[in-house]
Amino acid sequence: MRYRIITISRQFGSGGRTIGKEVAAQLGIPCYDQELIQKIAQESGFSPDYVVSREEEGRRGGWISNALTSRDWKGNSNQDRLFEAQRRVILDLAEAGPCVIVGRCADDILRARSDVLKVFIHASVEKRARRIVEQYGQRDESPEKRLRDKDKRRAAYYQFYTDTKFGQAENYHLALDSGELGLDRCVDLITTLCR
Amino acid sequence: MRYRIITISRQFGSGGRTIGKEVAAQLGIPCYDQELIQKIAQESGFSPDYVVSREEEGRRGGWISNALTSRDWKGNSNQDRLFEAQRRVILDLAEAGPCVIVGRCADDILRARSDVLKVFIHASVEKRARRIVEQYGQRDESPEKRLRDKDKRRAAYYQFYTDTKFGQAENYHLALDSGELGLDRCVDLITTLCR
Repeated sequence: MRYRIITISRQFGSGGRTIGKEVAAQLGIPCYDQELIQKIAQESGFSPDYVVSREEEGRRGGWISNALTSRDWKGNSNQDRLFEAQRRVILDLAEAGPCVIVGRCADDILRARSDVLKVFIHASVEKRARRIVEQYGQRDESPEKRLRDKDKRRAAYYQFYTDTKFGQAENYHLALDSGELGLDRCVDLITTLCR
Repeated sequence: MRYRIITISRQFGSGGRTIGKEVAAQLGIPCYDQELIQKIAQESGFSPDYVVSREEEGRRGGWISNALTSRDWKGNSNQDRLFEAQRRVILDLAEAGPCVIVGRCADDILRARSDVLKVFIHASVEKRARRIVEQYGQRDESPEKRLRDKDKRRAAYYQFYTDTKFGQAENYHLALDSGELGLDRCVDLITTLCR
């Protein structure tokens, strides 16, 4: 196929992860999403639990406070060291063979390659709110509030590490509204471009 | 087909107009682009030449200076009156039958309709620079400078009249990098969604 690697950036609750897994299944290639955590843990020396807790959507104050504290003598925070480990893992995976990579600024990390199809998946707040309640259940916070928090955090993380704006159409080859088009059609459009 | 109307917003030099015409030809429906000028002239009472000169990319100082001057007793500038005529023309066309509409904030003007596929076409500066030289020839100004000016003007015009950001993926159902994917593939993806 023309594109060896497919990166999927996605808004929280847009179904981007599900789309990535299905695209990978249809193309018979691996999809890296949660699987990256183990690899980043190995690469960085941090524990998988620590990697999860320090993700962009980190539970303990989020990446931005982490990025601003606990710096080593080179000025790198734990968050920076994790990002560097993530970068190396993603570069190695892309080198190793065709795959789908969900999130983690993979589109930007792999920008030097010409065999990467960069996809962005988004949907309206209403559609995403419905989806996260179906997927993760009700919480004390309203789904709209959860979405706003995640969107803000993800955009800030992306901008900090890539210097480009999350969700700007020109950063992607293909941007799809999964709420409008449906997940199956998104999968079809992506696989069509890869065959 | 599911979508009666297809709106195509596009970066200058991305081939969005060509894509719109080909999509319309393949679906056997009209494409409104330059054709809108005559209709807006009739609706507004201004001459077609005046409509062209006062477009977003207007030759006489651009829309923003026009928007800020020559106001009538209701506070509307000629630019506002032209936009209002444009809005009415686009609403009427959408009501009249299936069609493709290129540019002119049609995506936002038709936001209340559920039968509109909103498409955004973009490409890298390098690809667009090459295309505008092929299409419109060399000028004194470099193609990169011409693109920067047009991009800025179009984004400002769009933001002024729609209150949303030009080129933000979440404003469109489908956003395509025509420089990367090629014009034919863009046409295929759009028509696939309309059949």
